[in-house]
Amino acid sequence: MKVNINGESKAILAVWFEENQVKLIDQRKIPETIEIYSAKNSDDIYYAIKNMVVRGAPAIGVTAAYGLAMASKNMEDMEKAVKTISSSRPTAYDLFKAIDFMKANNFSESAARRYALEITERSRKIGEYGNTLIQANDHILTHCNAGALAVVDWGTALAPMRIAHDSGKKIFVYVDETRPRLQGAKLTAWELQQEGIDYSIIADNAAGYFMKNGDINLAIVGADRIAANGDFANKIGTYEKAVLAKVNNIPFYVAAPGSTFDFSLKTGEGIPIEERDENEVLMVNNSRLGPAEGHAKNPAFDVTPHEYVTAFITEYGIFRPEELRKLHSLIHEDLFMR
Amino acid sequence: MKVNINGESKAILAVWFEENQVKLIDQRKIPETIEIYSAKNSDDIYYAIKNMVVRGAPAIGVTAAYGLAMASKNMEDMEKAVKTISSSRPTAYDLFKAIDFMKANNFSESAARRYALEITERSRKIGEYGNTLIQANDHILTHCNAGALAVVDWGTALAPMRIAHDSGKKIFVYVDETRPRLQGAKLTAWELQQEGIDYSIIADNAAGYFMKNGDINLAIVGADRIAANGDFANKIGTYEKAVLAKVNNIPFYVAAPGSTFDFSLKTGEGIPIEERDENEVLMVNNSRLGPAEGHAKNPAFDVTPHEYVTAFITEYGIFRPEELRKLHSLIHEDLFMR
Repeated sequence: MKVNINGESKAILAVWFEENQVKLIDQRKIPETIEIYSAKNSDDIYYAIKNMVVRGAPAIGVTAAYGLAMASKNMEDMEKAVKTISSSRPTAYDLFKAIDFMKANNFSESAARRYALEITERSRKIGEYGNTLIQANDHILTHCNAGALAVVDWGTALAPMRIAHDSGKKIFVYVDETRPRLQGAKLTAWELQQEGIDYSIIADNAAGYFMKNGDINLAIVGADRIAANGDFANKIGTYEKAVLAKVNNIPFYVAAPGSTFDFSLKTGEGIPIEERDENEVLMVNNSRLGPAEGHAKNPAFDVTPHEYVTAFITEYGIFRPEELRKLHSLIHEDLFMR
Repeated sequence: MKVNINGESKAILAVWFEENQVKLIDQRKIPETIEIYSAKNSDDIYYAIKNMVVRGAPAIGVTAAYGLAMASKNMEDMEKAVKTISSSRPTAYDLFKAIDFMKANNFSESAARRYALEITERSRKIGEYGNTLIQANDHILTHCNAGALAVVDWGTALAPMRIAHDSGKKIFVYVDETRPRLQGAKLTAWELQQEGIDYSIIADNAAGYFMKNGDINLAIVGADRIAANGDFANKIGTYEKAVLAKVNNIPFYVAAPGSTFDFSLKTGEGIPIEERDENEVLMVNNSRLGPAEGHAKNPAFDVTPHEYVTAFITEYGIFRPEELRKLHSLIHEDLFMR
């Protein structure tokens, strides 16, 4: 992704492996500063995923893959390392997919590097397929951050917009701020700004208003886990926006690589939903919002039923929910995905 | 409303008239501190409404009524005073209703006091009618603040909950935080805390999740303006929650006094929607959320079509959208409302 550092536009990645450390853009610090977090062991990886130094299902997967390679090189107890890393967050399927991939490949550094390269390249393909759905002058809604930061580069939901923009289509993006963690206002807006794509941040409450007024004609979001029938988990609020898109006849697409599909689950009911600390709701930028004794509930994800999904944009092409059996076969035949 | 001041529970009002000044609880300071804003002329009234020292359609109406009485006593140019106050905010109908009422009553102090008393008493009646819809152990969603602060006392949407609670029904309230101005997290949570009613603040994004999971079985919101067919304007995000309530078969009620009904508008299309400063979205508690150069759009209200409303809770009783003609007659026969 392009990043403006001291007035110079540089291309950097969200996650990489260097000098036996896993390097992460610290996403808690964006957009204020670009700081690099260096993970030196599996406990650091656990910390980084759990506390959202890195977030976004594909980026979590890559971080876990590099983390296990690092742990293995450092002669950590690998059973313990796997247990630690897999307990960091429950919802994103990529985490478990990456761990299985690394187990099957002896936790080698080359396997982790291949995993990262594959995910990046697959995101670019998602962008190319998704770009075919975007017309010049589209006004596109997105929720949370499914950009380069959420992958390694390119992104999932943002990849089609980036490729559409680079190919000369003028687009405008409505960015849900995405409370409570504000990944839209903080991360997606920052990425779009770096790429020179027109956007406005909106309160999550305003997405319905703009849909109803005809200001939005397309919605693309990412996913954390997709069940066999197309029900999918994504950042809290995705379900709301999907329902509103349907009511307003707006196509609603989910962009995700094969590594996010969990065909072991028939429906979305089996997807574990992480409950996070209430202070993510009660505090913003270290400042308290509600009364001192206030309480909050903070589910981090919701599950959107497949009937609200127009289609899934994957590296294998675009599939309607009723076509996911075909996608299942393609993933099954894909050596990397086994 | 009950307010805990230095450990003592006192009953105070959101708006009152004293020593020829309009006194307002400064709602920008809640829940941190209770400060009283004193308006001394119609410019102060304009400032207080425009900058949301006072907000909530009925409270805005009462503030305007007292403001005009004060302006008249101070021998202000009343044509100018009316023009100033009526230009403060465009959406809430109570503002214009109160101005008309004061015009018809020679801007007298006694008329303003009657207006405030009528609105307060009507809110209590809304609470009593609304209480008949609430069962023990209900889990109720509300959006924004339609409590005592939004009226003078009692509230509209919160009045039924307060009366249900006082009558011994155990209820639980899901409070949408209500970005961008956070009236839910800051005002509604504070009011419920003062009244001892159980609640949790939730991100606006989470309302759909809790509805879909069966955790919410009733929704009650306020309104800023209601058209003849039942389409109504309320705080941005209300439309989203109404659609989600319908999809999840949850009754969705709108609580408002007669002064919020604008029968001159056939549908909600004619309701003017205020666009507020983008910094309300980009900043929270003086702290910036997005990138330094970030942009935002900030519609303050949305219009919910009548088909999403189960019924309106008013001081005249409870009316389904198709029964609003009957309500129109009752309001027409009501001397106060003429």
